[in-house]
Amino acid sequence: MSLNVGVVGASGYAGGELVRLLSTHPKVSISMVTSRRNAGKPVSNEIPILKGRLNIKFEEPDPPKIIEKCDFVFMATPHAVSMELTPQILEVGIKVVDLSGDFRLKNPEIFKRYYGVDHKAPDLLDEAVYGLPEINREKIKNARLVACPGCFATPSIIALFPLVKEKLIREHVFIDAKTGSSGAGRTPSPADHHPERTNMVRPYSPGEHRHVPEIEQALAPHGKVKVTFVPHAVDMVRGILSTIYSITMENVDEQSVWKAFRSCYSGERFIRFIHWKSGGLYRFPNPKITLGTNYCDLGFKLLKDQKTLIIFSSIDNLIKGAAGQAIQNMNIMLGYEEDAGLDFPGIYPV
Amino acid sequence: MSLNVGVVGASGYAGGELVRLLSTHPKVSISMVTSRRNAGKPVSNEIPILKGRLNIKFEEPDPPKIIEKCDFVFMATPHAVSMELTPQILEVGIKVVDLSGDFRLKNPEIFKRYYGVDHKAPDLLDEAVYGLPEINREKIKNARLVACPGCFATPSIIALFPLVKEKLIREHVFIDAKTGSSGAGRTPSPADHHPERTNMVRPYSPGEHRHVPEIEQALAPHGKVKVTFVPHAVDMVRGILSTIYSITMENVDEQSVWKAFRSCYSGERFIRFIHWKSGGLYRFPNPKITLGTNYCDLGFKLLKDQKTLIIFSSIDNLIKGAAGQAIQNMNIMLGYEEDAGLDFPGIYPV
Amino acid sequence: MSLNVGVVGASGYAGGELVRLLSTHPKVSISMVTSRRNAGKPVSNEIPILKGRLNIKFEEPDPPKIIEKCDFVFMATPHAVSMELTPQILEVGIKVVDLSGDFRLKNPEIFKRYYGVDHKAPDLLDEAVYGLPEINREKIKNARLVACPGCFATPSIIALFPLVKEKLIREHVFIDAKTGSSGAGRTPSPADHHPERTNMVRPYSPGEHRHVPEIEQALAPHGKVKVTFVPHAVDMVRGILSTIYSITMENVDEQSVWKAFRSCYSGERFIRFIHWKSGGLYRFPNPKITLGTNYCDLGFKLLKDQKTLIIFSSIDNLIKGAAGQAIQNMNIMLGYEEDAGLDFPGIYPV
Amino acid sequence: MSLNVGVVGASGYAGGELVRLLSTHPKVSISMVTSRRNAGKPVSNEIPILKGRLNIKFEEPDPPKIIEKCDFVFMATPHAVSMELTPQILEVGIKVVDLSGDFRLKNPEIFKRYYGVDHKAPDLLDEAVYGLPEINREKIKNARLVACPGCFATPSIIALFPLVKEKLIREHVFIDAKTGSSGAGRTPSPADHHPERTNMVRPYSPGEHRHVPEIEQALAPHGKVKVTFVPHAVDMVRGILSTIYSITMENVDEQSVWKAFRSCYSGERFIRFIHWKSGGLYRFPNPKITLGTNYCDLGFKLLKDQKTLIIFSSIDNLIKGAAGQAIQNMNIMLGYEEDAGLDFPGIYPV
Repeated sequence: MSLNVGVVGASGYAGGELVRLLSTHPKVSISMVTSRRNAGKPVSNEIPILKGRLNIKFEEPDPPKIIEKCDFVFMATPHAVSMELTPQILEVGIKVVDLSGDFRLKNPEIFKRYYGVDHKAPDLLDEAVYGLPEINREKIKNARLVACPGCFATPSIIALFPLVKEKLIREHVFIDAKTGSSGAGRTPSPADHHPERTNMVRPYSPGEHRHVPEIEQALAPHGKVKVTFVPHAVDMVRGILSTIYSITMENVDEQSVWKAFRSCYSGERFIRFIHWKSGGLYRFPNPKITLGTNYCDLGFKLLKDQKTLIIFSSIDNLIKGAAGQAIQNMNIMLGYEEDAGLDFPGIYPV
Repeated sequence: MSLNVGVVGASGYAGGELVRLLSTHPKVSISMVTSRRNAGKPVSNEIPILKGRLNIKFEEPDPPKIIEKCDFVFMATPHAVSMELTPQILEVGIKVVDLSGDFRLKNPEIFKRYYGVDHKAPDLLDEAVYGLPEINREKIKNARLVACPGCFATPSIIALFPLVKEKLIREHVFIDAKTGSSGAGRTPSPADHHPERTNMVRPYSPGEHRHVPEIEQALAPHGKVKVTFVPHAVDMVRGILSTIYSITMENVDEQSVWKAFRSCYSGERFIRFIHWKSGGLYRFPNPKITLGTNYCDLGFKLLKDQKTLIIFSSIDNLIKGAAGQAIQNMNIMLGYEEDAGLDFPGIYPV
Repeated sequence: MSLNVGVVGASGYAGGELVRLLSTHPKVSISMVTSRRNAGKPVSNEIPILKGRLNIKFEEPDPPKIIEKCDFVFMATPHAVSMELTPQILEVGIKVVDLSGDFRLKNPEIFKRYYGVDHKAPDLLDEAVYGLPEINREKIKNARLVACPGCFATPSIIALFPLVKEKLIREHVFIDAKTGSSGAGRTPSPADHHPERTNMVRPYSPGEHRHVPEIEQALAPHGKVKVTFVPHAVDMVRGILSTIYSITMENVDEQSVWKAFRSCYSGERFIRFIHWKSGGLYRFPNPKITLGTNYCDLGFKLLKDQKTLIIFSSIDNLIKGAAGQAIQNMNIMLGYEEDAGLDFPGIYPV
Repeated sequence: MSLNVGVVGASGYAGGELVRLLSTHPKVSISMVTSRRNAGKPVSNEIPILKGRLNIKFEEPDPPKIIEKCDFVFMATPHAVSMELTPQILEVGIKVVDLSGDFRLKNPEIFKRYYGVDHKAPDLLDEAVYGLPEINREKIKNARLVACPGCFATPSIIALFPLVKEKLIREHVFIDAKTGSSGAGRTPSPADHHPERTNMVRPYSPGEHRHVPEIEQALAPHGKVKVTFVPHAVDMVRGILSTIYSITMENVDEQSVWKAFRSCYSGERFIRFIHWKSGGLYRFPNPKITLGTNYCDLGFKLLKDQKTLIIFSSIDNLIKGAAGQAIQNMNIMLGYEEDAGLDFPGIYPV
């Protein structure tokens, strides 16, 4: 018998991806999808690829109904909404994976600085587990509430964790990220209006992005890190490439870097190493190759005479950066195969 | 001494193009640009390429002020706004080129059917000259009020006029148009949100577009035409390609077609013939080649055994399909060189 | 025990898709992939998404070896190669699905006119079954050799078959197709060089494309059809939209059209009807929605006063237009579930 | 009387831009354009926007003929060709602007390391002036031979020069560049094949690009600089954005940065400062805004608590990064207005 799973906030792009991926998941059934704005309308209106595949309707995100219909809940709501609903759902014993930013940061003051509002459920912040399985798998297994990392945080932390842990690099790192437009969400805006978002590269919020404190918080237990982060909007719908510039400690060579990566990730289902010696055009990570998948591809280049290590880390922002990672967390929390429903190989060329 | 020209509604894309093109026009000065929403702000906020080039501010579209500051006015307002302002401006003897749909259709009932509102200045409809210089140049010379054709109407009429006039084709034609996103204007919308408008081809309003009655009205004096028109949004910012399918009369050959085109357009500054025998990749019109220019490129293929003539017609929707044609009309109305300010050759590759 | 399947010509895009799709097919194993140019190299060099997923190497397309290692063979070679290899493979009792153009046309003279070479195995032309399951399923079941339709032929035939069969439209139809760049294959060329293939719409081979005789041949048994076909390259990697203009017989209304579509396709797994009354942005077929899937989406608009029926038909050119349809044919030939390995729902937004 | 100018190597993209820009230059005439491959063919075959505007043909790059027909020559040949032809042209007293990499580097051994061939005219290396007018204007005035900077070198040097000169930043800087496909030239290649170059971000040659020694050489006289440079191919045809990460000296504040920029560039015709406080979407440099122009747009963000200065620098790679800068150099060498033929404001949106 399959588990009843609900998606709250399913009309956004991350919510839509949850519905799509869950619709082919071997262990669960979608028992409820909510959207305040689209309540009563067929899900396929908003997630058009599901035409002829999933004949359900959006419902209101009404907590009593959620509690009645669901055994497990994904929150894909805008920031500051989840912290209102999640406590009510947890209370009745339903586990929650939250894709918003509400439960990622441990410190409510830092939360307020970056999100502009007071936290409504600060007592849950300590309990919430930061849902990056490659680092926190054991804690996720027993969590009631998992906070899925931000899309930029995911590839950055995965790239830096082994290097920080093994003390291969100095404190200050520079992350230059390039991102597709789906990361900005479904609501039309001047910044993502097609005539403005095409044929361009647009840096934004340099040094001030919300995902920076996440990255620093996640790495802090393993070593000190100071992050300079600049996201750039590029003409692409899906995907993030993080190019990370760091200064190495003395005597770091290629072997040390591979060793650090392998010691942390060698059994990982969703981490791939891309070697610059591999043939063809794709000798470094590229979001084209991770598109549609739950992979995080890692590669690097060491400039030994400059003591400079450049790490490349690529994901699909809506999958490993959102819905896929959320399902990976669910799989761990419920004891399923970690890649259940997440085995798609990608699509090439796309 | 240069003429004082005003642009009313300059924060839209067509208005912005007017400001850009007029800023390098040898005969005129921009004396006023208006935008209700942006009044008081620098023009370069909304037309960012003008940073460091044009230091003026948007003003309110206040008729007394327009009358005081301008000798000639372009209306680049949304539909149904121009018909309120234009009569007041004409009244004091200022000539107007209107880029909206308000004065294109002669019949106020057809106007109401396609634009959904009653016409507020129906008495001007007869006087307004349809501003397609290649067909109406003489009337434009003496006009007080010129209505610039719609972006889809321009390449379609230019392509069909010689064939209808010379009676080379049968009545019913099929126009399959492909258009860039700038044609939909500056206001963000779901349809032009980057994630939706990329990697796609989207037909819309098949058989029901507002530009159809314009095309039929413009061609009616020269022969009977019935138009089936389907626009398709493609992943491109600027440009329109119209592919037109028609059935020829008996004995129409390539010579007849070239002769018809040449007899109508041989001295035209902004019509180019693209011959399929020309070398390279661009043997048929392509909006990539007209981008940034006031050209309409024409080409065709005759399938003699099918009695089928396929005509290709390409423009930059914001230039020959809007601001460039508007300035071409002004140049004619004021006795300037017809290509004053419009001589840019385009840019390749882009 | 799973069946051993070989892909000959696997370094092209269609071949790569075959390998990708077969790698997750529940009933078969990939026993051999060939590429003359890449023999000895890892498959993931050329199909980079398979890094870490499929550790096999390209081999030479050596017939004795193919025969030894494979129980079933896909030919994804360039045109004029398959007709050399296929007879040798068939001879030993191995069934073949051919994705090239070699066995699609029944008449060797028409083949020569469109492909420029003499046919080397004309005796197989009669036996080869045209692999469009929605029309030829019964013949495919018992075929030794199936010729997969051309990418443009597939959506065009699927759209026209019910209308021709039910005699709803007149003989002459106009097909305006828009296609992504992957359809041109993997070999770099000026026409598909990124700076030339971006920000553009390029018509090519108007009225002269190789897929026209396929369309006419496939429809001929059901009614007379004369096709005017113009493909247009647009800035998209995957997908085809065919917009088809036709003139209806007397008294054709929307019900007649739906009825014709339903009577032909109501149980079809891979045909979807897109109704213009459906909500959201996707009220007509759009290659964005079929991307990554084996669907052919159908929709239409009837302009009753013009007796004009416009049909929209959309596919992923590499899947329903090539590798997916090939596997669908294999599934039928081998008695598997028709959608085995082909159930991917697509990806949105992409 | 206008000066006779020749373009050698005019069938590449940079050569094509030279021809386009020179065709509207007020002081010069194009007396010869060469292309070995296209000799005898109309220029508009390869530069299709010139159809109907420039009716000349490509000629062979034959030195005696060049000398006979030209008073001034641009070399837009591939690397290692110019060093063969240029000495012969200089010898007869004709001034040359070279757009290739042949005369940029002063040290023939570094040249050999980066270009893989011995230099054929090492005695000219000292004399050749590095053609970045904003830094070397006085030397350019009297030069016989000017070597135009590489496309990546231009925005990087312009951004760093004031900071290095005023000693505001530490030695080691990280340059993360994003580039359009036209920078890779006109010859089709797998890397720039449309299906591979779309929907992606591809880092290449990290730390090893040919433009690095140029940047270091140009800045060396003003202060010590160590450059880590990583170019990234993005889905864009024209333009480069360089994002530069640097560590400031003590007590550097925003005023110091603006002061450094202004003291170096305040009278410069082609440098614009983009202030993050400016309104609208374009608060940092963006290649969309410099497209089609000879501008280099500069902006920055200082993170004072991290002592980190991020500089953004944007150009059109084919104009300020190639043909436009070449013409700017010619204008200086010949005493023309520096912006003659280079005044185009750009095009928005594009």
